[in-house]
Amino acid sequence: MGMIGKAAAIGGGVIGGGWTARLLLAGVDVAVYDPHPEAQRLVGEVLANAERAYGLLTTAPLPPRGQLRFAATLEDAVTGAEFIQESVPERLDLKRGVLEAIDRAAAPEALIGSSTSGLLPSDLQANLRHPGRLFVAHPYNPVYLLPLVELVGGKLTSAHSIARAKALYESVGMKAVHIAKEIEAFVGDRLLETLWREALWLIKDDICDVETLDDVMRYSFGLRWAQMGLFQTYRIAGGEAGMKHFLAQFGPCLSWPWSKLTDVPELDDALIEKIGAQSDAQAKGLSIRALERIRDQNLVGILHALMAGNDGQGWGAGLLLKDFEAQLWASARERAAAPEDISRPLTTHRTKVNASWIDYNGHMTEFRYLQVLGDASDGLLRRIGIDAESAAKGASYYTVETHIRHLRETRLGEALRVETQVLGAEGAKLHLFHRLIAEATGEVHATGEHLLLHVAGGKASQPAAEVAAKAARLAAAHAGLPRPEGAGRRVGEAPPK
Amino acid sequence: MGMIGKAAAIGGGVIGGGWTARLLLAGVDVAVYDPHPEAQRLVGEVLANAERAYGLLTTAPLPPRGQLRFAATLEDAVTGAEFIQESVPERLDLKRGVLEAIDRAAAPEALIGSSTSGLLPSDLQANLRHPGRLFVAHPYNPVYLLPLVELVGGKLTSAHSIARAKALYESVGMKAVHIAKEIEAFVGDRLLETLWREALWLIKDDICDVETLDDVMRYSFGLRWAQMGLFQTYRIAGGEAGMKHFLAQFGPCLSWPWSKLTDVPELDDALIEKIGAQSDAQAKGLSIRALERIRDQNLVGILHALMAGNDGQGWGAGLLLKDFEAQLWASARERAAAPEDISRPLTTHRTKVNASWIDYNGHMTEFRYLQVLGDASDGLLRRIGIDAESAAKGASYYTVETHIRHLRETRLGEALRVETQVLGAEGAKLHLFHRLIAEATGEVHATGEHLLLHVAGGKASQPAAEVAAKAARLAAAHAGLPRPEGAGRRVGEAPPK
Repeated sequence: MGMIGKAAAIGGGVIGGGWTARLLLAGVDVAVYDPHPEAQRLVGEVLANAERAYGLLTTAPLPPRGQLRFAATLEDAVTGAEFIQESVPERLDLKRGVLEAIDRAAAPEALIGSSTSGLLPSDLQANLRHPGRLFVAHPYNPVYLLPLVELVGGKLTSAHSIARAKALYESVGMKAVHIAKEIEAFVGDRLLETLWREALWLIKDDICDVETLDDVMRYSFGLRWAQMGLFQTYRIAGGEAGMKHFLAQFGPCLSWPWSKLTDVPELDDALIEKIGAQSDAQAKGLSIRALERIRDQNLVGILHALMAGNDGQGWGAGLLLKDFEAQLWASARERAAAPEDISRPLTTHRTKVNASWIDYNGHMTEFRYLQVLGDASDGLLRRIGIDAESAAKGASYYTVETHIRHLRETRLGEALRVETQVLGAEGAKLHLFHRLIAEATGEVHATGEHLLLHVAGGKASQPAAEVAAKAARLAAAHAGLPRPEGAGRRVGEAPPK
Repeated sequence: MGMIGKAAAIGGGVIGGGWTARLLLAGVDVAVYDPHPEAQRLVGEVLANAERAYGLLTTAPLPPRGQLRFAATLEDAVTGAEFIQESVPERLDLKRGVLEAIDRAAAPEALIGSSTSGLLPSDLQANLRHPGRLFVAHPYNPVYLLPLVELVGGKLTSAHSIARAKALYESVGMKAVHIAKEIEAFVGDRLLETLWREALWLIKDDICDVETLDDVMRYSFGLRWAQMGLFQTYRIAGGEAGMKHFLAQFGPCLSWPWSKLTDVPELDDALIEKIGAQSDAQAKGLSIRALERIRDQNLVGILHALMAGNDGQGWGAGLLLKDFEAQLWASARERAAAPEDISRPLTTHRTKVNASWIDYNGHMTEFRYLQVLGDASDGLLRRIGIDAESAAKGASYYTVETHIRHLRETRLGEALRVETQVLGAEGAKLHLFHRLIAEATGEVHATGEHLLLHVAGGKASQPAAEVAAKAARLAAAHAGLPRPEGAGRRVGEAPPK
């Protein structure tokens, strides 16, 4: 969010394309260089996936999308870029050549992150003119949804570059962790590679097939690791006896034959054939595109679940997303600083129809209309000085009565705004009329008429003088507006002729 | 769910207590034997956690809880049990002694599952009189929430026992996977142990601390593995080129030094001390109880997210939970088979206030009232022959107008029912009045008046003759009921004197 204006992505495969999508959606201009003849199509596909996923991920306002440009040469791509992400195939000689070319063409202060899965940054930076700005920034697929990036510096990387990189990745919604010492494969891929080798043995030896192995993971420790990692999980399992006591129990297992640790399986044709066939059976006819869509929807759902974790305060990747959303809202408020005309109905809420709001017909579910209307009531209350903080002190408005008319169906991803007219504000009573409007067409999809009552200490009571004055000011400003068609109606009452 | 009536749990620690809780909540009577002086307290604590978690996990009606009994002897516990789960400490001599005692005292056809993390079932069953009914049933902590159980037979285990065990664990909501061949640590613990050994090296060598390692897992592949395992995830990453092509790329890494596979770290005092101190820092003052609560809430949230996966059809552990809920509802319907008096308002929906329905005041959020009322409308529609299937064919009722009165606050965990009075059914119109009632007090917390319109092929239209007849029959049966106080009211209109 304003951290950088211009970036370059060198390499536009699954990883490079994922970086490009994440940066563009965070408002950063990206120049892509990839000599692959189909680079534009491939990046376009990743970007389409990412846009769909972001549409579900957050209702916070995304900044205007960055400009995407395909550069004809590496030099053209990196010229003027403040930050360059290299994601070319995993060969030391190739990566070194590309990084040296980037180093020559880029501004000396531009940061260079390499997406390598396991090569040492000291080896990558050895021949650069400005090696201090080179670091490993290792992401996880899909890059646009999984927040982790491992930052690893080489012998010549400056602490300043790592600090700048950390802030930069965090500004596009990522969790940047700094790995203290460089080793091959860093931390994540080292754990993955270890588990992968063991998994290959299990398949090769016919202990289980790939579907059973995947089921073992996703019905058990996968559910744990989405929220806590290895050590915190074991800390809990150890109970009140404490982590150290618990660890001591693990000691004996280390000498037991519980792993094929001392040997490496040969990934020969027979094993490749076997895994390929088992994987085809496991997919049950679902295409890669279908699996991608299912995966992304699940990732969004899990991230949302973690946003609600820790009693609504957010946990892990969900807390990170919550913080990112707060940042998106703050940026949106900065962009829209024009003074408001309060003599017209007020825009009290904007949102987009989330995937979890849809029923089996593909329409927004009935009760989500009241969610959107309720959020608009909250928006109006914030303007008169009532917010979560005053509510926590026991003084707030409660809805006592609601009348909703459903006028049009609302679909997945539609952008909505609510315009609110204050029909009255007297004593403890606040009388509101909301129009839920589709941004694209300007059509009213639903209306909500609501009677709210001010409550303090559990009883209906007068609001504070300042609150009452703000409410009265809005009611007076709206007094001259025509009474909305649909207000003051009983269920089933014909509209006045 | 009727699979078994009586079980015994031998060992009542974290795992044995978890089994006990899962069985009791599924309606199975459990006799626990554990010589530990605090066994009753410890099992009670796990059960309290489990009950809280189940309260959040499902709104489906749980069967009447099974009877919990603490037996004075192992023999007393297993007498009359159809199924026995052994969860004593992980020592071969101890387990063999306990299993032999169980084998002698239990009915010969009773199933015996061992919770061992890694011992071979062939070694456990060698001296039993009836070895064919012994198998490994290895669960994951917390047993009451994580659905996986690995079933492993020994040389003497009968295929019939494995099949019975699979059906039994599935009847209490678990995912039972059968591991084809017995090896030490089976599949899950083999993967865990391998990753654990590598993690110990990373901490020992100061590559990162435990918090960084956990973050690496939970911000990246943990999110993937909660929904798909290792192979299906890589299948997607491989893209259209196919699994076999993708696998071939992995070949070279196997010979790279990307793992400490060839050596085992020594878990000496210095390493235990280091991990203990880092883990204390990571916990940031949260107690084990607090972490447990956060973990369970997150697991419930992730399971709910997966229930909504695959476009609402459910995915993985979420699909399993969905199927389990269907089973709970079916059992509840069997239990409540009394004929209904349709001349009174109909009970169209029962639910409990879910944790995700609560606002910052601890009350049920405004829009969730409409969710409960809408579910009651769906319940009424099912009675007149309209369900998801007819809706999928394009014929259903849509709510066009709603009037809600909020009369009382509703709190976390409160059991609710909705009683519905049919005010009218004419042509395409259906006019309903719901009372949302707290089961505990019988008090009305809210009312909803709704006008629904029958729609087919996108247009208001007459319902099918059979549907119209059922709706008319209910309307006629309710015609003599007093008109509800609160029906036919405008927002803010005083009640009739």
